[in-house]
Amino acid sequence: MLLGRPLPTAQARHERLSKRAGLAVFASDNLSSVAYATEEILRVLLLAGVGALGLSVPIAAAIAVIIAMVIFSYRQTILAYPQGASDYIVAKDNMGTLPGLTAGAALLIDYTLTVAVSVSAGIAALTSAVPALYPYRVVLCVGAIALVAVGNLRGLRESGRLFAAPSYLFIAGIGGLIAVGLARHALGFADGGPATPPPPGADQLAPLTAFLVLRAFASGAVALTGIEAVADGVTAFKPPEAQNARTVLLVLGGIMTTLFLGTTVLADLYQIVPRDQETVISQLAREVFGGGAPYYYIQSVSMLILILAANTAFADFPRLAFFMARDGFLPRQFGNRGDRLVFSNGVVILAVIAAALAWLFDGNTHALIPLYAVGVFTSFTLSQTSMVRRWLRLRPAGWWWRAAVNGAGACTTGVVLTVVAVTKFADGAWIVVLLLAAFILTFLAIKSHYQDVARQLSLDGYAGQPEPIDHTVLVLVGDLHRGVLDALQYARTLSPAAKAVYVELDPERTWRLEEKWGLYGMGVPLVVLTSPYRSLLRPLLDYIDHLSARPGPHVVTIVLPEFIPARWWQHLLHNQTALLIKGALLFRRNVIVTDVPYHLVH
Amino acid sequence: MLLGRPLPTAQARHERLSKRAGLAVFASDNLSSVAYATEEILRVLLLAGVGALGLSVPIAAAIAVIIAMVIFSYRQTILAYPQGASDYIVAKDNMGTLPGLTAGAALLIDYTLTVAVSVSAGIAALTSAVPALYPYRVVLCVGAIALVAVGNLRGLRESGRLFAAPSYLFIAGIGGLIAVGLARHALGFADGGPATPPPPGADQLAPLTAFLVLRAFASGAVALTGIEAVADGVTAFKPPEAQNARTVLLVLGGIMTTLFLGTTVLADLYQIVPRDQETVISQLAREVFGGGAPYYYIQSVSMLILILAANTAFADFPRLAFFMARDGFLPRQFGNRGDRLVFSNGVVILAVIAAALAWLFDGNTHALIPLYAVGVFTSFTLSQTSMVRRWLRLRPAGWWWRAAVNGAGACTTGVVLTVVAVTKFADGAWIVVLLLAAFILTFLAIKSHYQDVARQLSLDGYAGQPEPIDHTVLVLVGDLHRGVLDALQYARTLSPAAKAVYVELDPERTWRLEEKWGLYGMGVPLVVLTSPYRSLLRPLLDYIDHLSARPGPHVVTIVLPEFIPARWWQHLLHNQTALLIKGALLFRRNVIVTDVPYHLVH
Repeated sequence: MLLGRPLPTAQARHERLSKRAGLAVFASDNLSSVAYATEEILRVLLLAGVGALGLSVPIAAAIAVIIAMVIFSYRQTILAYPQGASDYIVAKDNMGTLPGLTAGAALLIDYTLTVAVSVSAGIAALTSAVPALYPYRVVLCVGAIALVAVGNLRGLRESGRLFAAPSYLFIAGIGGLIAVGLARHALGFADGGPATPPPPGADQLAPLTAFLVLRAFASGAVALTGIEAVADGVTAFKPPEAQNARTVLLVLGGIMTTLFLGTTVLADLYQIVPRDQETVISQLAREVFGGGAPYYYIQSVSMLILILAANTAFADFPRLAFFMARDGFLPRQFGNRGDRLVFSNGVVILAVIAAALAWLFDGNTHALIPLYAVGVFTSFTLSQTSMVRRWLRLRPAGWWWRAAVNGAGACTTGVVLTVVAVTKFADGAWIVVLLLAAFILTFLAIKSHYQDVARQLSLDGYAGQPEPIDHTVLVLVGDLHRGVLDALQYARTLSPAAKAVYVELDPERTWRLEEKWGLYGMGVPLVVLTSPYRSLLRPLLDYIDHLSARPGPHVVTIVLPEFIPARWWQHLLHNQTALLIKGALLFRRNVIVTDVPYHLVH
Repeated sequence: MLLGRPLPTAQARHERLSKRAGLAVFASDNLSSVAYATEEILRVLLLAGVGALGLSVPIAAAIAVIIAMVIFSYRQTILAYPQGASDYIVAKDNMGTLPGLTAGAALLIDYTLTVAVSVSAGIAALTSAVPALYPYRVVLCVGAIALVAVGNLRGLRESGRLFAAPSYLFIAGIGGLIAVGLARHALGFADGGPATPPPPGADQLAPLTAFLVLRAFASGAVALTGIEAVADGVTAFKPPEAQNARTVLLVLGGIMTTLFLGTTVLADLYQIVPRDQETVISQLAREVFGGGAPYYYIQSVSMLILILAANTAFADFPRLAFFMARDGFLPRQFGNRGDRLVFSNGVVILAVIAAALAWLFDGNTHALIPLYAVGVFTSFTLSQTSMVRRWLRLRPAGWWWRAAVNGAGACTTGVVLTVVAVTKFADGAWIVVLLLAAFILTFLAIKSHYQDVARQLSLDGYAGQPEPIDHTVLVLVGDLHRGVLDALQYARTLSPAAKAVYVELDPERTWRLEEKWGLYGMGVPLVVLTSPYRSLLRPLLDYIDHLSARPGPHVVTIVLPEFIPARWWQHLLHNQTALLIKGALLFRRNVIVTDVPYHLVH
């Protein structure tokens, strides 16, 4: 039911994406993590001293292997769900309601954090290049979120044209950085010494335990975020959709692995030490290019792609809400794709929560990362486990190796999830665990309400024709004027036995009214109710009770003459008596209140 | 019409005040200005140097003469208006609408400024005694206003008991201060030198022009504020009301003149120089008592009586609004004395504006004074001029000397008004002049709206019986369930020709509905409207237009089955379709929308 203006992009959805455009659209979500994943590994390792930073390369290599496994796993999923393979749907389909809801809750949290993390990292790219802006980073984050939200409210959506340039410029920029960096190092142009002095307090080091290495690994694992986006959006591709999506996913995976490994190796070669006020990518670009235009180019495209990554979350959120609402786990309104009001509310809620997160965590990407990874790996693991169950159940051709691919993916992401949850629990992962539980309970409560309503309204067991209803029509009057005459006339068409009811607050006014009634009252009987306590409502309610006391089914219609001022501010000049009467009678059974409007002309 | 809980003080109003209690109640408004009037004179004179401060005594004497004239003038007014002589009523009665509205606007502004000025001065009494609180004076002002407002919202009103102690303690305190101070000076205990060093920059003096003296006089004239309160509240006294009120007014005037002249003379004798961070009264008390308990006593009762003075404005404001609403110049709701919601709104509005003033003017009494005096003297002058016209018109016994008394009062306050407006124009009096004009225009617009409504609703010239109305009843259905059955049954009691209307968004659902309809539809015809653009509203509006195209008077009733969830949050889980349909049809003539509620049980 389209009650607002239909969304202008209702048609735009049918403009399918070519492989090239698709790569650009899904790249922002996938590749943007290259801008911060290496840094997250280095930050944890730094706790054990500058000497431990070299471990970043093997850790990144391990993550690259996991990326490859997950990509192959999701290529299977795309084949099985060419209509769009949201982790929520895949998990619910194959494993049942509770795993599905868990995946759904994880994804909703994930989308919110995508906005907060990506924007924080994008602003970090900006403040690295312009350090004077560093103290204003929280304001800049909130401003950027507001900008993206307003863009979405005004109809900006994912479109190949918007994304193409930044995505390819980012790939070219980071690719060039890696190539130039490696070449300079190979040719011996790069000086050997540490690019930045080690931070103070290097003597208070943590021991380099296996736990610390696992924490570093868990931090770097955020590189995987966004992989599921291609599988979600299969239907956006040109036919053959599934085949195109699979190709794009493979190419994207290749590019991402290259860029991520490349920057990690480069950071190691150039002995980059992470610092609070400048990102690792910024330090690298400064070292490799020595500042100047190429440096600012890298920072600009990093910022741009990160903010576009936030933008994708604004498109993913309503899509998932639609699926969950269709199943009765979210308010039904989200099931109206075209309902502008609901869409706007969704955008505003997402923006407010993300901005609150950016503010609470001081615009600090690193502080948000522990929250981010839990949701992502929960939905990965559930989705791939579901695929294994699907292959085992359906057993199509090649089911055993398909199950093996998804199984390997599920095991790997399951292990990563455990590592992330354990090593990051105290850093904030516990918040997400609590939120997951709260979300799932809410989904179940909503579903239970809808089922209950359906039961109450159901006609199952409804027995035949009801007996006729005894109907009383009362016109509530406070005076006799043209508006009241309209109401009286209307009431008589409802029932020839309609009566007017007047609550007496001042006997002298009653007397004047009765006189007028004789002249203009159209023969409708006027019932005068006395009000010892000068209350308007009490005598009316008593009278209705008196009428309702008769046996058999009955209904009382209260006709309220109401004049409608021509301008909004004029409403302030009139007693809102009608509103109060409607409020008082709303919850009384067998009483129906009807306004008869009388339109004033100016 | 009492739609909220009746005010608990509705009875309390009948507890009439004895002379002694009445003196206490009206003292706060009258006498509180003693706490700052002398200081205002001194501050202006100081511009011309410490040597000019001696002029304060003759200026105060002139003001005392004016006080006496105004008091005698108002004693006449009380005799003429024993039912309560608001300046608004007196001016409107005798001089017509525009002077009445001017007095009304002046009073409304006056009450707002009473709150801001009295609270600022009260907090100044506090921060003089506890200088550490001086930087927090704005917060303290806002807090005190909030406190008084909350007290009023919770039913605190003017009562003799509340006021008696602070008023008499204040009179005793200031009286004691003057007596001890004069005695100490006469006995030579007071040292001759200046109590405080002259402020720096004493070389950049303004010349002591007549204009400066007039400005000092205009500043001191705020001592007159509150005199009109006794005349307003005549009915609060025990019988004989007018006689008692006249006596109280005379006694109050005597006390006020004594205290005001006394403090001014004392400030002169002790060579007090006004300072920003300590009030003149505080300096005086410190000099006379040398600190200690008597000093803190003076400061406490000053603060108390000033805050009580603010409290009276909260009682005066709704009383005046009642009179003006009764005449149609303010929203009709203010005419319901007992309407708690309206009363609360009035209190909140008054508190918010007064707090904003205190904040804008930095909790600085002196900055607010120029705004204050214009309103006060405008209403004084209008009220007394009106009395002159009244005596000239009615000519009762002794009319000529009565007219002379009021005439002298009017001339004096008129001259003061001119002096205040001219000398204080640039200091802020211009704001009040603009506000007066804006208020008067608003009053006239409101009145004009009410008159217009009355004309449109009037039955004058209404001709006889109308022709019968052609009535169509349509039940708008989206499905067939128990709620819809109730609505169908109800519709059939309205008209045996009632029809159901269904807007088809999905042909398959139509087919299922038609099947159900055959089983349970009670024989009501089902009209299916197709919707090529998937809009619910458009086909419905077109169908109504089609029905309305027939000649003759007609009305269409749209019956909306609506289920009412049992808990408020469940509303969020349902489409507010009914609300949107009502919104869309609200401004269509001859269409009436009726909800038939179906109450869900949990």
